[in-house]
Amino acid sequence: MAEPRDTVVLAYSGGLDTSCILVWLKEQGYTVIAFLANIGQTEDFDAAQKKALALGAKKVYIQDVCREFVEDFIWPAVHANALYEDRYMLGSALARPCIARHLVLIAQEEGARYIAHGATGKGNDQVRFELGCYALCPSIKVIAPWRMPEFYQRFPGRRELMEYAQKHGIPVPVTPKAPWSMDENLMHISYEAGILENPKNRAPLDLYTKTCNPTTSPDVPDELEIEFEKGVPVKVTNTRNGVTHRSALELFVYLNDIASKHGVGRVDIVENRFVGMKSRGIYETPAGTILYHAHLDIEAFTMDREVRKIKQGLSLKFSELVYNGFWYSPECEFLKHCIARSQQAVAGTVHVSVFKGQVYILGRESPHSLYNEELVRLKEYHRLQSKVSTKQDE
Amino acid sequence: MAEPRDTVVLAYSGGLDTSCILVWLKEQGYTVIAFLANIGQTEDFDAAQKKALALGAKKVYIQDVCREFVEDFIWPAVHANALYEDRYMLGSALARPCIARHLVLIAQEEGARYIAHGATGKGNDQVRFELGCYALCPSIKVIAPWRMPEFYQRFPGRRELMEYAQKHGIPVPVTPKAPWSMDENLMHISYEAGILENPKNRAPLDLYTKTCNPTTSPDVPDELEIEFEKGVPVKVTNTRNGVTHRSALELFVYLNDIASKHGVGRVDIVENRFVGMKSRGIYETPAGTILYHAHLDIEAFTMDREVRKIKQGLSLKFSELVYNGFWYSPECEFLKHCIARSQQAVAGTVHVSVFKGQVYILGRESPHSLYNEELVRLKEYHRLQSKVSTKQDE
Amino acid sequence: MAEPRDTVVLAYSGGLDTSCILVWLKEQGYTVIAFLANIGQTEDFDAAQKKALALGAKKVYIQDVCREFVEDFIWPAVHANALYEDRYMLGSALARPCIARHLVLIAQEEGARYIAHGATGKGNDQVRFELGCYALCPSIKVIAPWRMPEFYQRFPGRRELMEYAQKHGIPVPVTPKAPWSMDENLMHISYEAGILENPKNRAPLDLYTKTCNPTTSPDVPDELEIEFEKGVPVKVTNTRNGVTHRSALELFVYLNDIASKHGVGRVDIVENRFVGMKSRGIYETPAGTILYHAHLDIEAFTMDREVRKIKQGLSLKFSELVYNGFWYSPECEFLKHCIARSQQAVAGTVHVSVFKGQVYILGRESPHSLYNEELVRLKEYHRLQSKVSTKQDE
Amino acid sequence: MAEPRDTVVLAYSGGLDTSCILVWLKEQGYTVIAFLANIGQTEDFDAAQKKALALGAKKVYIQDVCREFVEDFIWPAVHANALYEDRYMLGSALARPCIARHLVLIAQEEGARYIAHGATGKGNDQVRFELGCYALCPSIKVIAPWRMPEFYQRFPGRRELMEYAQKHGIPVPVTPKAPWSMDENLMHISYEAGILENPKNRAPLDLYTKTCNPTTSPDVPDELEIEFEKGVPVKVTNTRNGVTHRSALELFVYLNDIASKHGVGRVDIVENRFVGMKSRGIYETPAGTILYHAHLDIEAFTMDREVRKIKQGLSLKFSELVYNGFWYSPECEFLKHCIARSQQAVAGTVHVSVFKGQVYILGRESPHSLYNEELVRLKEYHRLQSKVSTKQDE
Repeated sequence: MAEPRDTVVLAYSGGLDTSCILVWLKEQGYTVIAFLANIGQTEDFDAAQKKALALGAKKVYIQDVCREFVEDFIWPAVHANALYEDRYMLGSALARPCIARHLVLIAQEEGARYIAHGATGKGNDQVRFELGCYALCPSIKVIAPWRMPEFYQRFPGRRELMEYAQKHGIPVPVTPKAPWSMDENLMHISYEAGILENPKNRAPLDLYTKTCNPTTSPDVPDELEIEFEKGVPVKVTNTRNGVTHRSALELFVYLNDIASKHGVGRVDIVENRFVGMKSRGIYETPAGTILYHAHLDIEAFTMDREVRKIKQGLSLKFSELVYNGFWYSPECEFLKHCIARSQQAVAGTVHVSVFKGQVYILGRESPHSLYNEELVRLKEYHRLQSKVSTKQDE
Repeated sequence: MAEPRDTVVLAYSGGLDTSCILVWLKEQGYTVIAFLANIGQTEDFDAAQKKALALGAKKVYIQDVCREFVEDFIWPAVHANALYEDRYMLGSALARPCIARHLVLIAQEEGARYIAHGATGKGNDQVRFELGCYALCPSIKVIAPWRMPEFYQRFPGRRELMEYAQKHGIPVPVTPKAPWSMDENLMHISYEAGILENPKNRAPLDLYTKTCNPTTSPDVPDELEIEFEKGVPVKVTNTRNGVTHRSALELFVYLNDIASKHGVGRVDIVENRFVGMKSRGIYETPAGTILYHAHLDIEAFTMDREVRKIKQGLSLKFSELVYNGFWYSPECEFLKHCIARSQQAVAGTVHVSVFKGQVYILGRESPHSLYNEELVRLKEYHRLQSKVSTKQDE
Repeated sequence: MAEPRDTVVLAYSGGLDTSCILVWLKEQGYTVIAFLANIGQTEDFDAAQKKALALGAKKVYIQDVCREFVEDFIWPAVHANALYEDRYMLGSALARPCIARHLVLIAQEEGARYIAHGATGKGNDQVRFELGCYALCPSIKVIAPWRMPEFYQRFPGRRELMEYAQKHGIPVPVTPKAPWSMDENLMHISYEAGILENPKNRAPLDLYTKTCNPTTSPDVPDELEIEFEKGVPVKVTNTRNGVTHRSALELFVYLNDIASKHGVGRVDIVENRFVGMKSRGIYETPAGTILYHAHLDIEAFTMDREVRKIKQGLSLKFSELVYNGFWYSPECEFLKHCIARSQQAVAGTVHVSVFKGQVYILGRESPHSLYNEELVRLKEYHRLQSKVSTKQDE
Repeated sequence: MAEPRDTVVLAYSGGLDTSCILVWLKEQGYTVIAFLANIGQTEDFDAAQKKALALGAKKVYIQDVCREFVEDFIWPAVHANALYEDRYMLGSALARPCIARHLVLIAQEEGARYIAHGATGKGNDQVRFELGCYALCPSIKVIAPWRMPEFYQRFPGRRELMEYAQKHGIPVPVTPKAPWSMDENLMHISYEAGILENPKNRAPLDLYTKTCNPTTSPDVPDELEIEFEKGVPVKVTNTRNGVTHRSALELFVYLNDIASKHGVGRVDIVENRFVGMKSRGIYETPAGTILYHAHLDIEAFTMDREVRKIKQGLSLKFSELVYNGFWYSPECEFLKHCIARSQQAVAGTVHVSVFKGQVYILGRESPHSLYNEELVRLKEYHRLQSKVSTKQDE
C-alpha cells in the first residue's frame, strides 16, 4: 500500500473493470469515492452500491440523472436533428457531459482533486469525459488507468483482471462476457469491438437488447400524435388507446417502449472516431429515432426555408462537436443558443405510425405554419410576425 | 387560326393537359413537334404517339432515355447522397434536366425556335425545364401556357379543358382523375396537390403505385450484395437466389423490383419550393432508397473523415441546386466534379437486407478500406496512397 | 391627365430622374408624396423640398435618418465584418432598407397604396427597395417606372428626359452630368456605369469626392484609440490632440473626417450583381474601412477561436443577404441575432494609425481578453465564464 | 557519450539553438546529418555549412528550394486567396511542408530513422513539421528536444545555452539577440514573443526588415501589369520602365522588391494558434500582399458568382488546414484539387499601383471575362463554354 495521497472520484459502473480500478486506486494510496449515474441503463444499483462499499470505497454516490439527461442533453439534440456522419444519433456522446457534470460537482463537494474513469485509450469516451471535466473545473486532475503503463501492463488481458479480482475479493461475473462491448443509457445502447470489429461480420440475432426483432414485432402499427412546442415534444398520445404522456422524461420513456416494441432504431455503421480511426458500431436508439423523424417533419413545416438551411449547417457542426466531446466548449454553447433560437416557432402536432422497424409520417398540423399555397415566403413571414401593422386595404 | 409562326417542340406527356396545349399551340399558328421521353414512367407510348399525330403534331419523337437518366443523372445523386431538406430524394428534379437536354437537341435538329411545356406557374418544374433549356441554348424561347393569361383565363378549370378536348377531338380520359397530381419516372413517383394539399390529411392507402404496402409485404427479407466502384453500384447480387445484375440500368431496375416488393421508399413530407411556398409531397423512391443507404455505408467505410465532412457540405449545396433546377449551371458542374473526385476510392461491397419498408445494413467489405484499428488517420492515408516509398525499417 | 388614382409615396432624390418621375406619376393620375431621406449625402434639402412642391407633390417629407442608419444598419455590418465578395463594404446595400422602412411608414401614415422609386431595371437597388417594402408591408404596390415600357420607351435617353423637364418646368441641372452614376450616403459613395463600365478604364483622378488623394494626403499619420463594447465602437480618441467622441453618429462622422483626410477607403472592384451580371464599381468608404480593421482586431483578440470560425460563416451569409436586399428576411434577422450574440464579450481598445490610404493596427488591450500564454482555450474560457466555482486548491 | 544510436536528420538553421541541439544529439549517441533549406531567408549558407561540419555533423545538406516553394506551395495559396483568420497570409505555414518534404527525402536517402527540429512546444511549427513528416513517412520518428524534459530542464534559459555553446566550441552570436523571435523565408518574415508578447505594445520602428517604412517610402507609385493564367501570375511588367519577369520565382522576387520599396505587406495581428492559445504576431509579406489583391480582382472578374461562393468556403477551410499543419492530409489535397479546378478560366491582366503601403487596383482585362452588361449569368456561362452549338437565328 502506497502512502496516503488524495481523494479521487471514480466513475463507477459496477462491472469488473471499474471494480478492479477502484481497488487498484486504493492500492496506489487514494481515497476513493465511487459515483454511479443512473442514466437509464439496466443495472442493479443497490447491489452496485454494496459492492463498491465492500471494495473499500469511502462513499458511494448513486444519482438518478435521467430527467436532466433528457431535458438538458437529449432535447438540444432533438432541436438539432443531431446525427453524426448522417447516421449515429449520439446516444453515448450525449450521456458523457451529463455524467461529467456530476463527477465535477461531487469532486467539488468532497474536495477531491482527482477524477478517474475506466474508458480505454482508443475510444471517444476518454476524450468526452476529460474535456468535460477539465472544462468545468480546470484545476481537476483526471486519472485514466487504461492509459497508464503501470496499469495496462499489469492487466494485458481479461485473465489478469480476473485473477486480480479473485485475489482482492472482487465478485467475478458468473455469466461469460459478451464477445463485444456495450454502453447503455436511456437513449440508446451501443455494441462494438470483439467479434463486431470486423465490419463484414453480421451482428448476431441475439445481440439486440433494447428493441424487438422487426421480423417478429407486431403486425399492427401503433399510431402516435406527438405535439411540439419550441422544438421539443410536450405531449405524446397513442391514438389507438388514448394513452397520453406530457412530461419530458415520461414521454421519452413511453416512446422508448413503443419504438422498442416495433423494432425501431437499429443501425449498423462504420464511423470515424475522434482519435482518427474508423470503428464499427451497432446502435439501438428507439425513442430518439421516432423523435428525429417527427421533429424533422414539424420543423420543415414551420420553419422558414432559408433559416432552415443556415440552421442545418449549424446542426452539422453541433453534432460533430458533441461527438468529439466539446459539449462544454464556447462554440457548442454558441451553437446551442443559435439553434434554440431557430426553434421558437417550431410548434404543432405530427402524426406518426410505428411499424416493423419504421417510422412513417402520416400528417402534421400547426397553429403557426408557414404553409400557405398563395403567398410567397417573405410576405408570409411578415404577416405572421405582424412586424408592421398595415391597413388591410386590399 | 392565326398566321403561321414557327416551330415549337412540345414536352408532351400524352395526358389531357399537354394534348390541349398541343391543339392550342396549333391554333396560335405554331407548327408543333411533340417529344415524349420514355424515362421509365408507366405509359402506352404507341398510343401516345398516335394521339399526338392525330391531334396535328407534325412529328412525334419518342425516345428511351432511361439508361442516360441512370448514368448521367441518378449516379451523381448517389455520389452525393443527395437529399433535399434531409428527406426528398430528388426524383423529379433529376429527370427534368435529362428531358430538357433532349428538348433542346430536338429543337436544334428541327430548327425550332420555341420549346413549350405543360408545367404550372406555381411549381418547381417550370423553373427546372426553363433554366435547363435556356442554359443549354440561350437563344431558345420557352412557351409556358399555364403562365400565359390568354391560356389560363381560357381554361380556369378542368371542366373547360374537357369541353375544349371534346370540341377538338382530343380523347378524354374515361377513368376519373385521381384527386391529386402525379409525376412518375424510373426513379420515383410523386403525389401532391388535391386532397393531399392539406398537410394534415393522410395519404389514402390506395394512393401508392410503385411500392407494396409494408403491412402486406413478404415476411421474409431479401438480402443483397451491392458492389460499388468509384462511388456507383456496378453489381447487385441477391444472395438468396444468386440473381446478379451488372449494368447500371439493369441493376437499378432490379433494385426497384426488390424495394417495391418490400415496400421500401415511401415518404410523406412538407418541402420548401423554389418559388417560395411550402408544399406537401408524398414520394416513392424504391431503388434510390436502397442505394442511398448502401452508398452512405460504403462511403463512410472508405472515405477519409475530413474529406467526408467537406464533401458533405458540397453535397448539401448540390442537392439544393438540383432541386432548384440549376443542373446545367457552372456551380453545379463544379460541384459534380468535386464530388466525383471524392469518390475515387469509394469501392467495396455492402450487404443489405430489405424488409417491411426498411433497408438494413448487415456488413461491408472493401479492397482499400481506411478501417484499421491501430493506425491513425494520416498515417493510414499515406500508407494507402504510397505517396512516399519508405524503407520499412521497423 | 388620367383619372384620379391613388396616393403614391415617391423615393425622391431631388435630381432630374425622380423629378421627371414625380411629374409623370401625376400625369398618370396619382397623388404624389415625395420622401427624401437625409442619410448623410451631400444635398441642398431645402431646395429639394421646394422643387418637389413646385412640381406638384402634395407633401414632401425630409427626414434625417443618419443616427438610425449608423445604429441599426451600419453597426450590424461592423459586427459581421461585412464584406461582399471579400471587398465591397455594402454602403448602398445598407442604406436601402433604412430608406425602405421610412417609405413604408409614410405610406401607412398617409394611407398610400403605392410606393415608387427611380432605380433602374438592371441594378441591385430596385431589388433592395422592393424586397424591403414588400416584406414590411405585403399589401403595398411598388411602381418602378424604369421597368415600365410606357415610361422607358418614352424616355430612351437623357435627351428625352431633358426635353420633358423643360416642357414641364422641371429645373434642369446647369453643370454637365458626370460620365458615371453615383450614390452617396453617410457610409460611402459609389461610382459606376458610363466611362467606368469598361473594367479596364482607370478611374479619373477627379472622380473621388469623399476621400483625399493619398499622394497628396498629410505626411503625418493620425493615431486613434477606438474603444469597443459588445462589438461596436463607443468611444474614439485622437491621441495626437485628445479629441474624443462617444455617440455612435458623432464618432462615425469623426472617423469619416480622419479617414477622408488620409485617403482611406478607396476600392475599385468588379462585383456580381443580384440580377446576374458582373459590374464594375468604385467605392469610397472612409469610416467603414477604419472600423472594419479595428473591429477585426478586437474581435480576434477577445473571441474564442472556434466561435469565430462559426461566426465567420454566418457573416459571409449575412453579407450576401444584405447585398441582395434581404435585410428584412427571417434568415437575415436570425443571422443578425446570432452574430450579435457572438459579440457579447467583444470589448476593448484598438490603437490605429491612419496614413496615406492605410489603416495600421498598432496594438490592442481588453478587460476580458482570451489572450493568455499559458492556458489552453477551453480552460481559459471557463475561467472567464466562472461557470463552476472551484476550490482553487493548487 | 551514450552508446551509438542511429542517424538523425536535423532541421538546422545555423543559429544558436539548433547548433546546441546538434551537439546535444551527438552527446545522446546519434549520428547527425544537418539539413538547411534555402527557402529565401537571409543567411550565410556557406558559413552555416562550415559551422555544422565543425560541430560534428556527419554531413550537411544545403538545398535551394525557393522555386519549389513558390510553385508548389505559394501558388496554391494564391489560388485560394488564402488568409488565416482574415489577415495572416500563412508565410511560415506554407514553408514548413516544403521543408518537411526534404527532411523526409534526405532521411530516406540516408537511411535515417529520426528527424529532429528546434521548434518549441508552444508554437505551431512543431505541429506543422511533425504532421508533415509523419504523413510523408509514417515510420519516421521525430525528436523535438524542446519538448523533452532532459533537454529543456538542462537549458531553462538563454544563459545555459550560451554556457553550453562556449563549453562545446559552438560560435556564440556577437550581436545581442533581438528581443523577439523571427522566422523568415521568401514569402514573409514574422516577429513574435519577447517584448511583442504584450499585445498592447507597439512594434518598434526598427523591427521591420523586409519592407520600407511607408512614411519614408517613395512619393511616386510604381505601376504594374500582372498577367494571370489558370489563377497564377505568369508575367509581371512595370509600366514605368518596361521591366518584365515571366518565371514564377523571378516574378515573385521582383514583386517582393517593388512591395518592399513601397512598404507593402505589414500587419500586426493577434491570432489563434493550433495548440489553443492566442498569440500576437507581426508579419511582412510583400509580394504575397500584391498577389492577394491582384488575384482577388482577376478572379472576381472571370469566375462565376456561385462557383466563387463555393470556392470561398473551400478556401477558408484550406487556409485553416495549412495553418494547422495539415498540408499533406487527404482533405488538403482534395481542397487543393477542387480549388485548382475553379481556376481554369481565371486569366487576364490586372493593373495595380503600389504606393505607401497600399496596393490599388486600377483596372483589369481578360480574354474570357464573364463581364457582360446585357446577358445574365447562366446564358453567358454557356455562351463561353459553347456547350451546345446553336443556330444563332436571332
